[in-house]
Amino acid sequence: MKIRNNGVLYGLSSGPGDPKLLTVKAVEVLEHVSVIAAPRTGKGHTMALDIVSQIIDIKEKEIVYLDMAMKKDLSVIEEIYDRHARLVEDYLASGRDVAMLSIGDVSLYSTFSYVAGRVKGDGFEVEVIPGVTSFNAVAATLGKSLTVMGKPLTIIPGSFENNLELLDRPGTKVIMKSASALGAVRDILIDKGLKDKAAAVADCGLPTQRVYRDITELPDAGEYFVTLMIDD
Amino acid sequence: MKIRNNGVLYGLSSGPGDPKLLTVKAVEVLEHVSVIAAPRTGKGHTMALDIVSQIIDIKEKEIVYLDMAMKKDLSVIEEIYDRHARLVEDYLASGRDVAMLSIGDVSLYSTFSYVAGRVKGDGFEVEVIPGVTSFNAVAATLGKSLTVMGKPLTIIPGSFENNLELLDRPGTKVIMKSASALGAVRDILIDKGLKDKAAAVADCGLPTQRVYRDITELPDAGEYFVTLMIDD
Repeated sequence: MKIRNNGVLYGLSSGPGDPKLLTVKAVEVLEHVSVIAAPRTGKGHTMALDIVSQIIDIKEKEIVYLDMAMKKDLSVIEEIYDRHARLVEDYLASGRDVAMLSIGDVSLYSTFSYVAGRVKGDGFEVEVIPGVTSFNAVAATLGKSLTVMGKPLTIIPGSFENNLELLDRPGTKVIMKSASALGAVRDILIDKGLKDKAAAVADCGLPTQRVYRDITELPDAGEYFVTLMIDD
Repeated sequence: MKIRNNGVLYGLSSGPGDPKLLTVKAVEVLEHVSVIAAPRTGKGHTMALDIVSQIIDIKEKEIVYLDMAMKKDLSVIEEIYDRHARLVEDYLASGRDVAMLSIGDVSLYSTFSYVAGRVKGDGFEVEVIPGVTSFNAVAATLGKSLTVMGKPLTIIPGSFENNLELLDRPGTKVIMKSASALGAVRDILIDKGLKDKAAAVADCGLPTQRVYRDITELPDAGEYFVTLMIDD
């Protein structure tokens, strides 16, 4: 049973980095809500919040930090999502709308869907505001098309050691957020003879943006928001 | 040799349908340019122009229509792109900036890249403004995540009769713009036992939006901007 006075949880796509790549709708929702739920890494980084704070005034907003853990232990992760859902629901139950931020597009490899599933299950309303993904921005930055007519596009999550055959597929391949596996991914691409077809952009649209047209220059690690594009 | 006084060609992503899904940057570029190049179908539809005209005032702009042909004859298509490039270059050479529109994101299965390739080859500057794709918006509308942790996402162009094995891949699959093949695609999905994993949205974000949670209700044809999503 939906209680009419409850707030709405918005899954808010912050885009890949350039604050001007937020949608008009995302800006409207951010101006409207009084509570922003911002993911925070173990090192204290709040990248999505940093992006939106350049385009809206967050001084008037209540910021709820959602501390992320890179733990692989599933029960620990489940506990974290449970805690985040409870944090958000406290605001919703008091009638306040909450925008939970996500880098890129909310529907792509984000933690939002896990929190949203719990919040929805508890009877609250959830609305998703779609956004620009990192690979859309990376293709634009590299001046390349993401697709070849009639061929598929394959988006590969960063850790794909068990899925190497994905690189042999027809069409363009995109590898997202390789993080600590970046050196291994780079070496796999070189070994497979894909060096001349591959390029990468780290922190696309941010002041720290780095373009790697030669992937042999990619470091072993240390680039978290790096997106690789491998031509057909 | 770049001539400094030439205009810039912007590849402008209009998003999937809801004008509020344009980015802040796209709106700024549209307000800035004096010329908009708008693709037009054989039936006279100008969908991308219809979207942007709801968010900026196009009365002050010069509109150049780029007539598309659904011809499969490659030499005819090449001729059309050549003509579009010349049309655009006339404006650029006179120092005027041009925004060429594209539904969804410019880098995904759009004709912009073919025109841009020619324009770049002729020495003009091209800048791409990335945008929200139809599948980002469709996932949001269906309330589903596009991805499963650790698994790939496969984007399949509408005509994929020769690529049926793509449907057997792990992870979520998206089929874009099936157009006249829609009935065939629907029947293939049903035959493969994927009915309960599939859903579709036509004209996502437009007043004519239709959601098909049961794909057996999809018509044989007549839905051009339909995006299918098949869960892992």
